[in-house]
Amino acid sequence: MNANDAITRDAAGHDGMTRETRQVGRSLGRLEARSKVTGKAEYIHNLVLPRMLHAKILRSPVAHAHLRGIDTSAARAMPGVHAVITSEDVLRIIPEPYFGPAFHDQPILAIGKVHYVGEPVAVVLADDPHVAEEALHLIVVDYDELPAVFDEVEAWSPDVVVHDRLKPAGTFPDLKHLEGRTQTNVALDFRVRKGDVAKAFAEADHVFEHTFRTQQVMHTPLEPMISVAEPFDDAITLHTASQSPSFVRIEIARLLGWPENKVRVRTGILGGGFGAKLYIKLEALAAALALLVRRPVRVALTMEEQFFTITKHATTFRMKTAVTREGQITGRECEVWWNGGAVADIGPRVTQKSGFTATGPYEIDNVSIDSYAVYTNLPPAGAFRGFGIPQMVWAYESQADMIARALKMDPVAFRRKNLLREGRAHPTGTIMHDAALTLCLDRIADRMKWDAPFDRGTPKLRRGRGIGIGFKACVAPTTSVAIVNLSADGSCIVYSSTVDMGQGSDTAIAMMAGDVLGIPAETIKVIHPDTDVTPYDMATLGSRSTFHMGHAVRLAAEDAKANLEALALQVGLPATATAAQVLPKKYGMQAGNIVGVGSYIPTYKSPDHDTGQSENITPNWMVGACGVEIEVDTETGQLKVIRFENVVDCGTAINPLVVDTQISGAAIMQLGSALLEDMEFDAQGQLRNASFSEYKIPGIHDIPNVIGREIADAYQSNGPFGAKGVGESATFGVASAIAEAIEDAVGVRLTSLPLRPEAVYRAMAAARNEPLPDEE
Amino acid sequence: MNANDAITRDAAGHDGMTRETRQVGRSLGRLEARSKVTGKAEYIHNLVLPRMLHAKILRSPVAHAHLRGIDTSAARAMPGVHAVITSEDVLRIIPEPYFGPAFHDQPILAIGKVHYVGEPVAVVLADDPHVAEEALHLIVVDYDELPAVFDEVEAWSPDVVVHDRLKPAGTFPDLKHLEGRTQTNVALDFRVRKGDVAKAFAEADHVFEHTFRTQQVMHTPLEPMISVAEPFDDAITLHTASQSPSFVRIEIARLLGWPENKVRVRTGILGGGFGAKLYIKLEALAAALALLVRRPVRVALTMEEQFFTITKHATTFRMKTAVTREGQITGRECEVWWNGGAVADIGPRVTQKSGFTATGPYEIDNVSIDSYAVYTNLPPAGAFRGFGIPQMVWAYESQADMIARALKMDPVAFRRKNLLREGRAHPTGTIMHDAALTLCLDRIADRMKWDAPFDRGTPKLRRGRGIGIGFKACVAPTTSVAIVNLSADGSCIVYSSTVDMGQGSDTAIAMMAGDVLGIPAETIKVIHPDTDVTPYDMATLGSRSTFHMGHAVRLAAEDAKANLEALALQVGLPATATAAQVLPKKYGMQAGNIVGVGSYIPTYKSPDHDTGQSENITPNWMVGACGVEIEVDTETGQLKVIRFENVVDCGTAINPLVVDTQISGAAIMQLGSALLEDMEFDAQGQLRNASFSEYKIPGIHDIPNVIGREIADAYQSNGPFGAKGVGESATFGVASAIAEAIEDAVGVRLTSLPLRPEAVYRAMAAARNEPLPDEE
Repeated sequence: MNANDAITRDAAGHDGMTRETRQVGRSLGRLEARSKVTGKAEYIHNLVLPRMLHAKILRSPVAHAHLRGIDTSAARAMPGVHAVITSEDVLRIIPEPYFGPAFHDQPILAIGKVHYVGEPVAVVLADDPHVAEEALHLIVVDYDELPAVFDEVEAWSPDVVVHDRLKPAGTFPDLKHLEGRTQTNVALDFRVRKGDVAKAFAEADHVFEHTFRTQQVMHTPLEPMISVAEPFDDAITLHTASQSPSFVRIEIARLLGWPENKVRVRTGILGGGFGAKLYIKLEALAAALALLVRRPVRVALTMEEQFFTITKHATTFRMKTAVTREGQITGRECEVWWNGGAVADIGPRVTQKSGFTATGPYEIDNVSIDSYAVYTNLPPAGAFRGFGIPQMVWAYESQADMIARALKMDPVAFRRKNLLREGRAHPTGTIMHDAALTLCLDRIADRMKWDAPFDRGTPKLRRGRGIGIGFKACVAPTTSVAIVNLSADGSCIVYSSTVDMGQGSDTAIAMMAGDVLGIPAETIKVIHPDTDVTPYDMATLGSRSTFHMGHAVRLAAEDAKANLEALALQVGLPATATAAQVLPKKYGMQAGNIVGVGSYIPTYKSPDHDTGQSENITPNWMVGACGVEIEVDTETGQLKVIRFENVVDCGTAINPLVVDTQISGAAIMQLGSALLEDMEFDAQGQLRNASFSEYKIPGIHDIPNVIGREIADAYQSNGPFGAKGVGESATFGVASAIAEAIEDAVGVRLTSLPLRPEAVYRAMAAARNEPLPDEE
Repeated sequence: MNANDAITRDAAGHDGMTRETRQVGRSLGRLEARSKVTGKAEYIHNLVLPRMLHAKILRSPVAHAHLRGIDTSAARAMPGVHAVITSEDVLRIIPEPYFGPAFHDQPILAIGKVHYVGEPVAVVLADDPHVAEEALHLIVVDYDELPAVFDEVEAWSPDVVVHDRLKPAGTFPDLKHLEGRTQTNVALDFRVRKGDVAKAFAEADHVFEHTFRTQQVMHTPLEPMISVAEPFDDAITLHTASQSPSFVRIEIARLLGWPENKVRVRTGILGGGFGAKLYIKLEALAAALALLVRRPVRVALTMEEQFFTITKHATTFRMKTAVTREGQITGRECEVWWNGGAVADIGPRVTQKSGFTATGPYEIDNVSIDSYAVYTNLPPAGAFRGFGIPQMVWAYESQADMIARALKMDPVAFRRKNLLREGRAHPTGTIMHDAALTLCLDRIADRMKWDAPFDRGTPKLRRGRGIGIGFKACVAPTTSVAIVNLSADGSCIVYSSTVDMGQGSDTAIAMMAGDVLGIPAETIKVIHPDTDVTPYDMATLGSRSTFHMGHAVRLAAEDAKANLEALALQVGLPATATAAQVLPKKYGMQAGNIVGVGSYIPTYKSPDHDTGQSENITPNWMVGACGVEIEVDTETGQLKVIRFENVVDCGTAINPLVVDTQISGAAIMQLGSALLEDMEFDAQGQLRNASFSEYKIPGIHDIPNVIGREIADAYQSNGPFGAKGVGESATFGVASAIAEAIEDAVGVRLTSLPLRPEAVYRAMAAARNEPLPDEE
């Protein structure tokens, strides 16, 4: 095992490898595609275990209340009901049944209080899921309602406190400053300081201050969440649609007080994740239920239940920017409130990791960032494709455009002037390397024909255009381990805990291993995550897999290759001999294995909590730029994206075909957040549209006719094969580009998402001082 | 990866390991015991897959015939029948559907001919196994009967030839001399030559010549054979009760023309194996069926069907020995005929590997051994606990006793005089090391109080006693690979393809890994064989696992330990730091793995075919000595073993508790072969007792009241922790000791197994020149 942080372009040049054996850079269909279309791909939803019970969850109907009592007798008496479980039962086997990646604040079932509508209160177990569901109606819960708080800014100065006590997870290093703090809704207040912001504002030619808001939305993976727990004598197996099997193992082991090797966590193919299936979700409940009844238990959510399980943070972002009359940004103050809902989940880390980029991809001498993770009485928010960056970009790119317009500068020129360049320092002190910001901006402008005449449409259907650019630091510091095993016929198996949830990771892993070993990716088998089988990986999140697991796979393959070469020489064969030549010679028959192990962690630092400063805050920056042309109906506010261009810097594209679909997929998903999706809560915290008949995600008719995408000609010097991640980059600039295009088309500026026709209509009416229909 | 053949006693001394952390030498209950008694251990018989079809096999009712035609129309038409499969179907997907470890002579289903009663001819597939069984009766097969041969000596000079053409497997190195030979029933004729046997006989004071025979018996694992094949798009998984998953993978891959990594073979816990489940049995049929119908297929044998699937070789052993009047053996000529039945299976290797020990554990200057693997029209014979050694020992120890009696020497003294001693050469040229022959003989004599007065019973119930000693070379050369993985909490998983079939290998593996790593065996998880998960191992056979897999596990654990130490130093911790200290420090959280890999193959040679000579024929010799006291009813011939003593040399006992049960288990199993079991064929090759109502294995009332067992105080210098295997050693001396005791009690000598009361009675009657009842 070894790790190597710095690989030069030459080192990745693969001496002696012919064009035929190069795998990286091929456009290769997903290796699992056939199994998916023939219905043979393994999804946990299809798993049936003997004696398996189905769990259905009774959820809180109120946002904040003391639990006075739960009467389960009628439900227990219902024919077909195997058991009814409350926290009282759970506490018999798990004394501290609270879990979570940043805070141990999520009870397996509500204990004493409920904190949001939809919080799990009790579970019915039955052989028939319909019986379990019916019996839920027979459980009587006595709630003593409490005042609730829903707005993130309001919750920041609390009248209502969601949790009596903060419970930071011991292993979350960034939360030390919370020690001793109990009565607050602020789970994390992270800051970055550079220069003297007050002075910058005082000396500025112009100061702009705006507030931007984003709404709470849901991940909507097409495969809803599911965990099946299978108990053994002194062990447990979790079959779960999880993006982070290694984390689930560790967290379940912690809850049970067991060693890791008594907890087995395995995943199948995932039908989408987008962050919803990260860290620990249903697994703790499934494990507790299975251990209580000593039978396999299946906890499967409906699509609707996911709205109450994990969401994307709503945010409020106050941004104040000092600018010279020439358009140079000289200072920026950012305050961001992240609405985490009632459970921290990974929100504090989102608050930090995205918070430190709040000033955008711009070189600014004076910076102040305050980023607050705030508890409210809403359903939990956590990681969502982009990990908070789409919210940040929405704000800083909206303002960039507003400033450019105010200064009568071309918005592309304004950005180009301020962009961070190679070798310059980010506000955290980190020197920028291999972030192709200027290239991506240039390429998007070129694709949009930015400097050419633009058709502005008709008085009824007005046209406008906009661009946006954002960047994201790769999550740090995280670890990946991979193992490569060659059989005596030369065939290869790769062991990796990266979860293929549609992003094509199996294929990328096979390509990277095959590239090192000189064998076609199609012949390589990639074993799916199973903590009894595949080694540790932090998680499949944040576009980290190509970079981190890519390195681990590369190192494992290189280790295998070195072991093969050593054995070849030992048995008197040339160093270039294949496993199919070496192993039979060594062992006298088709026998044995060549095993290679790769462990990777990049050498960089988390930012210091108090200043946000660090010399080396991330191993790489991912860049995405977006350009849109839209058409707005001036009578109705209806808007249509007619051209949708996205350019990303992902370094080398391991598999250009899959990168292409990642660009489109990410951009379209963000189109949903920008234009359509919104979890609508009433004043009591009741979600009014928790179903797809009322909650609209992009359908085929919402997709722009013209979708262009481009992989910037870039190279990540320290990446495996020059690569870095790409799963999120095309989400970054979408929303602000559309808001910019709306202003470009009809002269109104929206600062809250989503950018719905009624908002456009209202803004246009307000600009014309017209009364709105409902105000007449 | 590295291999180390020579470990000194000191090197295994584990500097710095305290008594508390030493694992080797503990008497530890099997780790899986609880899961077995609670019914939770995984047996393949319990596996239910969605859409799984049940296969039932139509078997040949005749011993040798041309197949004129098969009419499956009525069976196909039966309601509930999914398909009826014959070789015609198989040939569509597998052009050469013949398999086997030594010869590719076993068709998946009979092609053109049948060669023994019970040979699979056709298969019915149905959702309901009873429907499949019923439908078998509707298949009409037209047989054109041929003359058959059943006796191994008769088949050696053939009038009837079983196979038209010999088909040695390309990878079986010992069969090169068969090239070009076709029309013979001799699959292998292996020889050893040393000195001048003719001269020895000419110059001898005494020459003894006898012929000994053993019968065909069955392994009778309490879990009958089962294989379930699960087809995927371009891959297949075999869930199978196999002792050799790595071999099955390679052989299925060869049959299908696929790479190894498209074939996954996994086993559960086995309910006994004893050699019956070795190499490839039902797997090829299950795979072909599943690929033909594209559904999972379960092939599960009844207990009765196993009689027609694999058995223990019947043998005829002609032995001629030259002796001085002082009792020194000066020459020995052995001719052994192994009745392999109609399929070679691993018979040729049994013929060779046991054949070269046919002269026994004695130092003899002039030796000639001829050992013949012979085809007959009986059900196949293969590996059976002891791998042919019990048959050899039966003969050479019977004759040893007969010679001692003729010379009026004490049989212990006769053996002691001739035994091979440390540093002396075996007839193959191999120098004896660490074979505690004299020690085991001394210990068995001591336990039997050999020199004390012995109660000879009454005229009706006469008492006698006997001893026997045998040895076995460990199968050579073979490979084992193991992987050890430490998690960041220090918990440990070991990956090994050794199959735990009741012999306690999981526990031994955990103890050996734990010993190196200094952690209790009970905390270590041993992953069961799965070729997608666990690395290569030749097979679980021939008592090789403790030695070979023991070394691989030791090397893997040492590799992990070295990697851990290196990482500890890298992160500034002492070299003695634990994984739970080092990994969190390295990775900043509970993350990562320490992986160690161990590959082992001992450095020794297969004997040269033409002379049998080799300087280094085996990495170790396993020794077993047996002593019995019996009581014979002189009126009926009924005999009862009243004292049963067994001493083995297994070097260090890794787990004395389990070694103890292995000694008893092996000895009692051989008691069945010696006294009770016999597959009785009629003149047409029909088995008359293929059921446990008629085929008797030892029951509780057959077990001697006094069973003593002893682990000799020995040490295997090149073994892992000083250990070697023990699963077979106590089978060696049982049968001859009983025959010796019979002569000691009632003065008659039996030279054929089993030693049934009627045989004793007949021999006594013959000795008294009395007519037998059926002769009256």
